[in-house]
Formats: sequence, C-alpha cells, structure tokens
Amino acid sequence: MRILVTGATGLIGNAVAETLEDGHEVIRASREADPSVDLTDRESIVSLYKSLGTVDAVVCCAGKVPFKPLAELTEDDFRAALNDKVMGQVNLVSAGLDHVADGGSFTLITGVLAQNPIATGTAASLANGAIESYVRAAATELPRGLRINAVSPTVLEEATGYHPFFPGFPQVPAADVAAAFVRSVMGVETGRIFRV
Amino acid sequence: MRILVTGATGLIGNAVAETLEDGHEVIRASREADPSVDLTDRESIVSLYKSLGTVDAVVCCAGKVPFKPLAELTEDDFRAALNDKVMGQVNLVSAGLDHVADGGSFTLITGVLAQNPIATGTAASLANGAIESYVRAAATELPRGLRINAVSPTVLEEATGYHPFFPGFPQVPAADVAAAFVRSVMGVETGRIFRV
Repeated sequence: MRILVTGATGLIGNAVAETLEDGHEVIRASREADPSVDLTDRESIVSLYKSLGTVDAVVCCAGKVPFKPLAELTEDDFRAALNDKVMGQVNLVSAGLDHVADGGSFTLITGVLAQNPIATGTAASLANGAIESYVRAAATELPRGLRINAVSPTVLEEATGYHPFFPGFPQVPAADVAAAFVRSVMGVETGRIFRV
Repeated sequence: MRILVTGATGLIGNAVAETLEDGHEVIRASREADPSVDLTDRESIVSLYKSLGTVDAVVCCAGKVPFKPLAELTEDDFRAALNDKVMGQVNLVSAGLDHVADGGSFTLITGVLAQNPIATGTAASLANGAIESYVRAAATELPRGLRINAVSPTVLEEATGYHPFFPGFPQVPAADVAAAFVRSVMGVETGRIFRV
C-alpha cells in the first residue's frame, strides 16, 4: 500500500509511520516536512494530493486546539480549534476523494476529550465531538468502497508533560495508538471510532 | 423565572416558549422577532443580552445547517454549519455568562444526527457532535452554579416534510421535545444530552 501520513513529525504520527513502514510505502507529510502540508489551508492540501497522485490510504495525526479555562476561551480560540482540527481534517477528506484508490481509506484523529472533559479542554472537546460525528456520517456516503474511521486516544504514556492535566486517566503507549491506525487502514471497518 | 428563548419562531422554539409561559416570563427572540438576534453575529448576541439585563435561563432552539450529498458539500457548507449551529450557540453561552443569574442555566439544541446519520446530513452531524461534546466539557467549568445541557430531538412528528429523509426513525411530538427543555431549565442536571 501507498499511505499518506499527515502530522508525521508528532509523537503519534511518527509511531504510525514507523509501524506502517514495515511493509508499505509511507509518505510522511507535515507542516515542517517534505512534502509539507498546512491543514488549515485547503490549497496546501490540494497541492499535496496533486504532487502525490494516487494513494491507498490517508492517515491524519495532526490537529491543534487551544487549551484555556472556559472563561478565557474567546470566539477566536473556538474558531481556531474548528479551523485546524475540524476543517483541516474535513478538507483532507474532501480534497482527497479523487486521490484515494478504490477501496482505500481515511483515518482521522479525535481524542478522549470528546467524551470525558478535562479542565481547560472545552475547545478540544468541541473539535473532537465534531470529528466523531462527521466520521460516522461521511462513512455512509463515500464512493467506490472508500472507508473512513477515527482513532481516539487517551493521553499518551510518553507525553509526560500532559499527565498532570489528565489526573487518573488511563495512559496509552504510542504503539497501541499506532496499532489502532493500522487496524483502520488494513481492516474492513468503516464509520468507527477506535478508542485507545 | 425569566427565560430567554432564541429561535422562538420555529416549531420547537414555539413549543418550548408556550410550555414555559405557563408560570414564567418568556422572552421570545429570533432573527425576525422583537427582540431580534442573529446568532451568527456575536455583536447581535451581546446587544440582546445588554437590552435584557439578567435572565434565569437561556434556551436555544436555533441553528441552521446545509443538507447536501457528501460529494457536494463544499468547504463553505461545512463552515456555514460550524458558524451557525456551533459558534452561534457557543457565543450565546460565552456572551451570556455575565447575564444569567446564579444557579441559572443554558440549554442548547443538537439532534439525532450526532449519532445516527441520514443521507445528505454530514454537515449536520458534524455540528451536532461538536455541540454535544462542548456541553459535556463546558458544564465542568461554569461559574456560580450555572448549568448547561443540550436537547437532542429526532425528527418531529409535525415536520412531515422531513419524514422521507428519516426513514424508519422514531418521530417525536414537539411537545415531548419541549418537555426535555423544561427538564433542563427547571431541574438540577448539568452536562447532559437529553435525547428525545
């Protein structure tokens, strides 16, 4: 398979790319990498697909959201979350519809905050909830046997700096998150949220 | 109680206002009503709150989203859904924080498409999913005993024009949806999604 991984420089993206590179051609894209892509700019996504031609799977491990107490989250903060983690991924799918081979797949990223809030996480929750419902709906209308799922990780074992913000939350090794992405890419399921 | 109902000219908004008017002062606001409010314009929301002073509860029964096949939903369509049903309600809460009395409440509207897709409903699903996760998160950080919930109706019994788009979905009378809003406004629950 030929697999595009966006957000490949992050902890999760790197783990996913490393796992998939065992047997597949992986294109690691990110804001800083070559090929580079800025998910907040639809034209940048369109250019990336044009340069790549056809892929068998698209994986997204990117998406920034601001973390602030609710009373400090401005309209711009909520819009930034929607523009980046939500519209970035929605555009990655819609711009990619003609660039993914028959029977191929999209795998997006959401997160535990869609269901379980933490302090300062309201904009993140909002964005994750949007992506989960989008995936369930989009799966029913994709053409040519295309599939779409999302992986929803809890806090990463390796991301120790985040642990104080997730008191008592289970932690998951990046390798387990990567496995969920592999299950989505290589399996047959669609419209699913894989919680790890 | 003094209760602001936005989207009061719609089927649901009117049913909610009628129900709450039995014993409460209800301010019916909508794009066309007096007082008027355009939820896509934060300044319009701010003006409405300034003109009202303090209320005990805010109810939102408004939120437009485009319905189109997935392949025809443009970036602008998804942004329109986020701008109206999502940011409209998020701004109704944040701009209202200083205008709702201690122990008061916000009740937003989402819908069955957050969990259960229909054809042409992907933008609606996206918006509803965002609101549900937002409500669960925001509830944990509201000050002064303020509460927030959302009501998630399936298709209305009275909205016969929509029935063909919801094949086999249970239908609910507007009065039952109104009851869920009353439960949110008058009860003690917070961070809940009332599915009717």
